[in-house]
Amino acid sequence: MFQRHPQNPLIRPQDAAPSRPGFEVIGTFNAGAVVYQGETVLLVRVAERPVQNEAGGNQVLVPYYSPEGELVVREIRRDDPDFDTSDSRFVIHRHTGELFLTSISHLRLARSRNGVRFELEPAPWLKAGQAEEAFGVEDARITPVGNRYYVNYTAVSPLGIATGLVSTHDFAAVERHGIIFPPANRDVTLFPCQINGRYVCYHRPMPGMFGGYNIWMAESPDLRHWGNHRPVLRAQPGGWESGRVGGGAPPIWTERGWLSIYHAADRQDRYCLGVFLTPHDDPARVIARAREPIFQPEAPYEVEGFFGNVVFTCGVVLAGDTLRLYYGAADESVCLAEAPLAAVLDALA
Amino acid sequence: MFQRHPQNPLIRPQDAAPSRPGFEVIGTFNAGAVVYQGETVLLVRVAERPVQNEAGGNQVLVPYYSPEGELVVREIRRDDPDFDTSDSRFVIHRHTGELFLTSISHLRLARSRNGVRFELEPAPWLKAGQAEEAFGVEDARITPVGNRYYVNYTAVSPLGIATGLVSTHDFAAVERHGIIFPPANRDVTLFPCQINGRYVCYHRPMPGMFGGYNIWMAESPDLRHWGNHRPVLRAQPGGWESGRVGGGAPPIWTERGWLSIYHAADRQDRYCLGVFLTPHDDPARVIARAREPIFQPEAPYEVEGFFGNVVFTCGVVLAGDTLRLYYGAADESVCLAEAPLAAVLDALA
Repeated sequence: MFQRHPQNPLIRPQDAAPSRPGFEVIGTFNAGAVVYQGETVLLVRVAERPVQNEAGGNQVLVPYYSPEGELVVREIRRDDPDFDTSDSRFVIHRHTGELFLTSISHLRLARSRNGVRFELEPAPWLKAGQAEEAFGVEDARITPVGNRYYVNYTAVSPLGIATGLVSTHDFAAVERHGIIFPPANRDVTLFPCQINGRYVCYHRPMPGMFGGYNIWMAESPDLRHWGNHRPVLRAQPGGWESGRVGGGAPPIWTERGWLSIYHAADRQDRYCLGVFLTPHDDPARVIARAREPIFQPEAPYEVEGFFGNVVFTCGVVLAGDTLRLYYGAADESVCLAEAPLAAVLDALA
Repeated sequence: MFQRHPQNPLIRPQDAAPSRPGFEVIGTFNAGAVVYQGETVLLVRVAERPVQNEAGGNQVLVPYYSPEGELVVREIRRDDPDFDTSDSRFVIHRHTGELFLTSISHLRLARSRNGVRFELEPAPWLKAGQAEEAFGVEDARITPVGNRYYVNYTAVSPLGIATGLVSTHDFAAVERHGIIFPPANRDVTLFPCQINGRYVCYHRPMPGMFGGYNIWMAESPDLRHWGNHRPVLRAQPGGWESGRVGGGAPPIWTERGWLSIYHAADRQDRYCLGVFLTPHDDPARVIARAREPIFQPEAPYEVEGFFGNVVFTCGVVLAGDTLRLYYGAADESVCLAEAPLAAVLDALA
């Protein structure tokens, strides 16, 4: 039902200047999306890594923020017996379990009048600013609530993967609201209004021990403090959502109920998008769920890339009756696909 | 510094009647503690399992609450190739990862005039009552706040290990407040008053992926909704707290600051107790921490048992200048050890 835009990918790593000397951009993807003052505004995840120097073959460069808030680059020799450097995404200490990432992300603003041709700002809109973000900030979702825009994002650090919250009224001044979900938890999607007198969100815990990667709901009096956690949508054995499910775009109000586009991965980490529906007054109760993916990696820029076979959304925009799906392709670029809202609703079982 | 009570263990499995026919009690341990109307009140974790029938050698009986709220016992054959039954504590499906526990816990009230000789009630005080508790409720902590007693506990289910909250004013009527921390999170300790206008607790996330098992802090306007999560105390490599740390007894106000007795385990799962101190107005800032355990498994009933080499506290009582430490020994019995409060404070580096 979705038509890929012919100009895909809309934003590519080479379109973004690195935020500092000595770094190169390797990913521009997983963008939150909203319409603000007539423009489509994206908050793009920009992933950077230190440019390898001449000794690059013998060492790995890992960037992180020190406790003093300085970005430092540590060199880890590939022949250091204490470290496992076999995975290109991270380095891990064999005995202590200490972990470093080989890239670090920030959020960058992009604007467009037509929703297709974006101007990416040269500097970060939000970068790591506290210990819980020492490995960067990732995967923004933007939700208008009242006269403010709330932006939740993934905060990554040696302490794990958590979710932080900031807000803005003009996309210039940013107020921080701290970590709203401790490790391990991401893929938070906020509802744009109160339901039964409480703010509501979906979130996706990643428990150690056992339990699986499922979508939960929480309630809040103020968007900053969350409770009354309940499971909502579980991964399904055997198929395209057997590995995990997690929130995608913030829920969309439709006449039939709240429409949620979420992501799911199978055991081979192939990421597709699914859709479910809840009543207007009960976001914990799934009343319809599409059995098949509504969108899956097929185009070359989705199948091949930094991490191939991934389509992943952090935001959609409703333009009249058309759903404009902004999505990250292969953990590398920002893309767009469009479908009539009615067609998406028809996919619900 | 702690003196074990000569009548230890104070409560043993054989002291507790099973809550239903066909079950046997295998553990009475990890009790929350508080003084109420002149008596010491404990909320004891009572672990039960189905009594094996004649075919016991060939099968494992796993108890759990069905979605309809009925306690059912499923028989899993040891020769079923789909299940791994090699661990006595749980059974796991080899392909789907589906998990069952071989025992199920509830919370039971015990009262004592002298804090040593306890009367255990015959029926559960709190048992599983929602989907997030299908495998039982465990490890209560009791905190007086205003004119109510708040009891947080571990809620276990196929969805993971979470923390629930209830409250009571008389230890008879119980009001439920839902799941306050989603999986995987337990070892929550509430402060008995607001600090800087917010309620405060420590909690212990168990992240998947990476991050370690460390103590975090959160704030709340109402004890039900929690935010502003920050790390407080990290596991230390190499020694008695290299595996994990987690909250023990609810924090105690002293003239020097808030005193927290916590548990720590090494990589061999030997559980000891440690202690740290924070300022009255800043529970996120550790100003002193004992380098050595203040209490560790040494007595026979601590070294041997259902899960040996464990001392684990969920509650202490301050009796004059004496700290009465109630603790679970070897995941099997309730024990008591006493120390002068001043001696515990002297242990702080």
